[in-house]
Amino acid sequence: VFFHAKGLQFEAKPDKPDAVYAMKLQELIGGAWGEMTVAMQYLFQGWNTRIPGKYKDLILDTGTEELAHVEMLSTMVARLLEGAPAEATARACDDNPVLAAIVGGQNPQHAIVGGGGALLADATGYPWNGKYIVASGNLMADFRANVAAEAQGRLQAARLYNMTDDHGVKQMLAFNLARDTMHQNQWLAAIEELKADGLEEEPTPGDFPQGKENEEFSYTLFNLSIGEESAEGRWASGPTPDGKGQFRYVADPQPLAPEPVLPPGDPELYATNPPGGGLVAKVKEKLG
Amino acid sequence: VFFHAKGLQFEAKPDKPDAVYAMKLQELIGGAWGEMTVAMQYLFQGWNTRIPGKYKDLILDTGTEELAHVEMLSTMVARLLEGAPAEATARACDDNPVLAAIVGGQNPQHAIVGGGGALLADATGYPWNGKYIVASGNLMADFRANVAAEAQGRLQAARLYNMTDDHGVKQMLAFNLARDTMHQNQWLAAIEELKADGLEEEPTPGDFPQGKENEEFSYTLFNLSIGEESAEGRWASGPTPDGKGQFRYVADPQPLAPEPVLPPGDPELYATNPPGGGLVAKVKEKLG
Amino acid sequence: VFFHAKGLQFEAKPDKPDAVYAMKLQELIGGAWGEMTVAMQYLFQGWNTRIPGKYKDLILDTGTEELAHVEMLSTMVARLLEGAPAEATARACDDNPVLAAIVGGQNPQHAIVGGGGALLADATGYPWNGKYIVASGNLMADFRANVAAEAQGRLQAARLYNMTDDHGVKQMLAFNLARDTMHQNQWLAAIEELKADGLEEEPTPGDFPQGKENEEFSYTLFNLSIGEESAEGRWASGPTPDGKGQFRYVADPQPLAPEPVLPPGDPELYATNPPGGGLVAKVKEKLG
Amino acid sequence: VFFHAKGLQFEAKPDKPDAVYAMKLQELIGGAWGEMTVAMQYLFQGWNTRIPGKYKDLILDTGTEELAHVEMLSTMVARLLEGAPAEATARACDDNPVLAAIVGGQNPQHAIVGGGGALLADATGYPWNGKYIVASGNLMADFRANVAAEAQGRLQAARLYNMTDDHGVKQMLAFNLARDTMHQNQWLAAIEELKADGLEEEPTPGDFPQGKENEEFSYTLFNLSIGEESAEGRWASGPTPDGKGQFRYVADPQPLAPEPVLPPGDPELYATNPPGGGLVAKVKEKLG
Amino acid sequence: VFFHAKGLQFEAKPDKPDAVYAMKLQELIGGAWGEMTVAMQYLFQGWNTRIPGKYKDLILDTGTEELAHVEMLSTMVARLLEGAPAEATARACDDNPVLAAIVGGQNPQHAIVGGGGALLADATGYPWNGKYIVASGNLMADFRANVAAEAQGRLQAARLYNMTDDHGVKQMLAFNLARDTMHQNQWLAAIEELKADGLEEEPTPGDFPQGKENEEFSYTLFNLSIGEESAEGRWASGPTPDGKGQFRYVADPQPLAPEPVLPPGDPELYATNPPGGGLVAKVKEKLG
Amino acid sequence: VFFHAKGLQFEAKPDKPDAVYAMKLQELIGGAWGEMTVAMQYLFQGWNTRIPGKYKDLILDTGTEELAHVEMLSTMVARLLEGAPAEATARACDDNPVLAAIVGGQNPQHAIVGGGGALLADATGYPWNGKYIVASGNLMADFRANVAAEAQGRLQAARLYNMTDDHGVKQMLAFNLARDTMHQNQWLAAIEELKADGLEEEPTPGDFPQGKENEEFSYTLFNLSIGEESAEGRWASGPTPDGKGQFRYVADPQPLAPEPVLPPGDPELYATNPPGGGLVAKVKEKLG
Repeated sequence: VFFHAKGLQFEAKPDKPDAVYAMKLQELIGGAWGEMTVAMQYLFQGWNTRIPGKYKDLILDTGTEELAHVEMLSTMVARLLEGAPAEATARACDDNPVLAAIVGGQNPQHAIVGGGGALLADATGYPWNGKYIVASGNLMADFRANVAAEAQGRLQAARLYNMTDDHGVKQMLAFNLARDTMHQNQWLAAIEELKADGLEEEPTPGDFPQGKENEEFSYTLFNLSIGEESAEGRWASGPTPDGKGQFRYVADPQPLAPEPVLPPGDPELYATNPPGGGLVAKVKEKLG
Repeated sequence: VFFHAKGLQFEAKPDKPDAVYAMKLQELIGGAWGEMTVAMQYLFQGWNTRIPGKYKDLILDTGTEELAHVEMLSTMVARLLEGAPAEATARACDDNPVLAAIVGGQNPQHAIVGGGGALLADATGYPWNGKYIVASGNLMADFRANVAAEAQGRLQAARLYNMTDDHGVKQMLAFNLARDTMHQNQWLAAIEELKADGLEEEPTPGDFPQGKENEEFSYTLFNLSIGEESAEGRWASGPTPDGKGQFRYVADPQPLAPEPVLPPGDPELYATNPPGGGLVAKVKEKLG
Repeated sequence: VFFHAKGLQFEAKPDKPDAVYAMKLQELIGGAWGEMTVAMQYLFQGWNTRIPGKYKDLILDTGTEELAHVEMLSTMVARLLEGAPAEATARACDDNPVLAAIVGGQNPQHAIVGGGGALLADATGYPWNGKYIVASGNLMADFRANVAAEAQGRLQAARLYNMTDDHGVKQMLAFNLARDTMHQNQWLAAIEELKADGLEEEPTPGDFPQGKENEEFSYTLFNLSIGEESAEGRWASGPTPDGKGQFRYVADPQPLAPEPVLPPGDPELYATNPPGGGLVAKVKEKLG
Repeated sequence: VFFHAKGLQFEAKPDKPDAVYAMKLQELIGGAWGEMTVAMQYLFQGWNTRIPGKYKDLILDTGTEELAHVEMLSTMVARLLEGAPAEATARACDDNPVLAAIVGGQNPQHAIVGGGGALLADATGYPWNGKYIVASGNLMADFRANVAAEAQGRLQAARLYNMTDDHGVKQMLAFNLARDTMHQNQWLAAIEELKADGLEEEPTPGDFPQGKENEEFSYTLFNLSIGEESAEGRWASGPTPDGKGQFRYVADPQPLAPEPVLPPGDPELYATNPPGGGLVAKVKEKLG
Repeated sequence: VFFHAKGLQFEAKPDKPDAVYAMKLQELIGGAWGEMTVAMQYLFQGWNTRIPGKYKDLILDTGTEELAHVEMLSTMVARLLEGAPAEATARACDDNPVLAAIVGGQNPQHAIVGGGGALLADATGYPWNGKYIVASGNLMADFRANVAAEAQGRLQAARLYNMTDDHGVKQMLAFNLARDTMHQNQWLAAIEELKADGLEEEPTPGDFPQGKENEEFSYTLFNLSIGEESAEGRWASGPTPDGKGQFRYVADPQPLAPEPVLPPGDPELYATNPPGGGLVAKVKEKLG
Repeated sequence: VFFHAKGLQFEAKPDKPDAVYAMKLQELIGGAWGEMTVAMQYLFQGWNTRIPGKYKDLILDTGTEELAHVEMLSTMVARLLEGAPAEATARACDDNPVLAAIVGGQNPQHAIVGGGGALLADATGYPWNGKYIVASGNLMADFRANVAAEAQGRLQAARLYNMTDDHGVKQMLAFNLARDTMHQNQWLAAIEELKADGLEEEPTPGDFPQGKENEEFSYTLFNLSIGEESAEGRWASGPTPDGKGQFRYVADPQPLAPEPVLPPGDPELYATNPPGGGLVAKVKEKLG
């Protein structure tokens, strides 16, 4: 169950409106790596986890916080849209290139659909969707995805920080950046904790019986680009990070299986078959 | 430029057809964490990177290999679909519950659309799309996403391994699992290499001037779920993984800003305004 | 800001697992008219509204409740998936038609992607997306959408109620049905309140100056299907519900404008133009 | 069966081209609440209805009309795009900021994909899709959705009316606004007719046996936001609009069920289980 | 403007219900190559064309007919769903494997969302969308797409014909197949007519000045797969179908440009730059 | 298996950056008819084909080449984005309308998401998806789709050629246009080859037994638009292109089946039934 308090987690007040920036800021609400993604990713991970206690609580704490970020950002977008020249006509734009440019840089749906409010969409207006999240039940695989999300999210927030000189916006983003710093650290710590608690290990899933995978190829780098620069990194030789093998470099990899040849298809599906396939079709038809 | 050799990277031949399993295996082709995702993610990362040399070469080696995995899996799916009871009629199913069940468990588009061949879609028939990939230009953020992709991918391959007793399928998946092991290790090694080369650090992006983020909240865990189990992990106290701070736990976090109140909206957008807003509208209309 | 309490709003415990039903129940989580839709629709309406006070509070109360419904349903789905025959092989299915049927009726992503947990998707596996919600800023238009959502939602819950004989599931759905009853009533009451408070009226938006619309056609029913059964309802004559006009029936409507003829297109876009257009292209090319 | 007459339902001729406005107007063609939505929503409702006669005829009349609206709007968009500076180069834009702004505000696909014609997409270029429509078989639930669609549609048309000073465009929109007025009224009248004919009632579906829903919660408002402003409306006390109950306000709602704890997951899915789960996995593996 | 007559273009009455087949038949309604695609593709082509007269009329005739096909198929689907075991419970399925299989093979949304009626979706439940259609303004390019659509459509209808032994369904599909035969022929004839009328030619667009394309590569086949089987067809030598050149085969193609090296990225975007790039960032930061 | 060589197929270097054009050029990467579509369409056709030899080799040659086109275009986009004014603030734009216009015309995700690199999306930012491709197994139907794709692709490349005066961009597009010329010709030649080899014919699929389709309607044009201009083309009379019939024109087509009336729906689905249906519901409920 959730409860809502009316205050914002952090202030979300721009110095002045800026509809073009509002469109960009939507990326942090409804982009693939935006706040909606982490909110829903963490909530579903929390609801789906099999382990009550510290992990579940951490996940739900964080998911609940991210919802408050969606709220902050939506409030900021609505305020950035204040007085947006939604009704600016072509004539007005002809006389005023700056106005025209602003109109051109806006998302027209902010006015037409949202009436001056935020949308659940990204910086191009593409809607957020449920394929952006993962809750696999395996906490290591999911925490890996969480670190990635927080790194991409902090990167985008940093870029957006540099795209405005509005002090109010920068203050809010400075808070968001700090939270992304925390969450990157937190999920990295949680990965260590999972290992320390003996719950998972690399390669994930650690429970898959290693004897069943084809270990001949478990630590081999295939050089499939012409040139061997890729041999120069630590991924090409020496011990592997999982502590279970040694990297091996194959400079000139070859196909391990011959060209596949598919058998003639079912004549009732009318795939193009090799000559002769037509006969089969006729036979089948006569019989059928 | 790419070149194609007709052999497969590894054999992709099932012992016998199994159309229901073919539908499931599509997840590894066109699912959010399937081979198409890693192929395109790595290729775009390689094409977009600013650093020629070992990193770019590694990325493109791996993207090129993943394309060969799409090829292997598509071949496997086509062979699993051989002789699928595509044209099974209702009458035939009435007489044969096992046949009926197979028909029910198939993806009908395998026959109707693909004519017995693979689709660029996942295990529910949902098409693969370009939002599944990320190529941000920041290699640390992207390698984090790559580790996550390989962990989720290996997890799914392991699950699918357990869903069949077909020896040929299991052999191919044993190869895929090994490659996912390699790629998890490889990207983890590459993250270390980025740090060793002084190109990136935590929190990503490391170049964002720390003084500009709101450091008061950079290492704070907000307990937003009632109950304090989340205080028990290493994410709640002690040094942070980035080596730059100490975790702090706030058991009873409060909103840091008051309830936001949006000003009346533009009357020409007809948002519902507080009483009195109607007046503004009429004035504006008279003037306009 | 949100807070999370660990208890569920209502018990979500099936008598026994049923993976096929779990797939169906996903419609109430991530379908176009599911709980995620109303949760996000109400939260965005609340965040975007210009009117502090009773309306905003009501909207956010309800949005916050709907999140708890997503939580209940996700928990129910995870429990329905317990022991689902995810790893059932083809051989096992061959021997057991009931098992085969269950496998066929499952969403394979419940096992492969979710590891036995709920997805943010509907009963066919299609992901939830942000286009399902509306927050237009106009409360009347939005409350109309809310009534519709609650009516469709209750209809779907009622259908799903009839598709199971699991007592635990039925108990939870009986609670959901009751909440949909409340919410249908609540939004209908809120529509009345908006009118009573003088904030909106029919036709929405009430502030649009009626003199500017083409009133000749504001209350006219065009009979565009051959046959005149549509003349028999109260929508064809008598006073209109908005109290501002009289319905009028046009039995034999005619086009009000002639066939449109588009001028030749820009030759640089290579649209097929009427003969002679080619000349223009050559001239432009010579000059250009 | 349909027949097409070459004239337009109403004139669709702008005074002069305006490619930026053409992009905005796409919202009325292919937006979630655009004419394509109502056209297809009504046609599918008509085709799926079980009741021949006045309702079916009304629905199909209106769906057929909305198709003509798509035609009008597409014609208008093509004319607004005439002479659009599709081929304007960067150099031309450097010299001419107004031109640059227009280029920036256009949808580039209008030229590249549509060759100067309309697209089946909204104001951001997002394609129309079949999830925007509902045809549930229950006429009350569907008419509720129809009222909502006409209210949102009229709201958007009114906003777009204010975004241009082109007389020709305004004339067409004045017609559209009038039709939205009619259709809002018509569906409200049809809701009354359904009740008068004894076919449906509130809460929808009226046929669901009330004794089966959990009536204790059918008329209760849960105050889940901190603060009690929501107690002030008519939705918090007094008789409910369905005439079957009294609203009740719960100021301090509590979870009705304890924290859910999921059992350990199937080891073959590699969900992270509580310590000890690993044992089960090994047992199962040995046996398996 | 459109008019609707209540009769169907052709009878759409199955001998008996078959919910599993209903799901498959949805492909012809809302699949990428279904009737909705051709209906909307032709209508938008007609509305966007610059040439009044025989071409426009043909296009709109055909688009109007395809709408009637959507109607026929939707009616057929609704009838196939009659008596579908929507409310079949798990217990009922346990006792009856055939019932279970049917339930497994159904689209659950047919009952939950559609109430026993057709959806605007394909055989996996994926919604139809506007990206399936093309109306480019260039009639040759579009007629090529129309031929392709009718060929794929007829192929799918033929496959579906073989998947049922219901006489009523087969009769309707025999009509659809005939119409696809007509439409394939018609668009092929229209391509010839465009050439005969001097409106277009190959390669499309014929108006693009050939001197501006890089003619060295206009008729060259690059052998990028290892092996030279592709040299054996008429595409490898001899005159080209456009009558303007001779095919040429390059057995061992080489890259025509060196490896691209991107310059260091903008430091404010935090792309990973080559060592030294960090310096630029610090300078910029100090200055900025 | 694929191999990657580091050089580009053709040079992809603009004279100078142009971020607005970069957004447009995305259409050729990730649009419905872009290079990604043909790359994946051809690769899947090749992997799914049943015929080893010249056809399969040709298809895979071409798919492999198209991947190199995605590479070229992505490189070009990254270079066009160099120095894009990503961090331009509102204040900077206020002073500089040309800058403002450029910012307005960019895709903000190029900076925020891609860090100055290409996206797998089209000119509006909509992601590429797997529904854009077809690999039906029937080579004739697929080659028809291939011709259409190359015609639409060349059309779009020609339009984009006219939208820039950058010499470097034009050189690359001149190469792309040439390749589209080749590929149009090649697939047209392959269609002829299929016929010459006796593998397929018109109407596709040629193997469907003609006696089973309703031949009465196989060559008939229904005039469903009022007016008879469509009678004037060669599609209305004379021999059909498939050489199997004569076109026939029906000036006044009539419905061939009466108005469909659906039976009352299952009461447990709560579709609105004709009066009396309620009784059935009550009976069923009592019994059930």
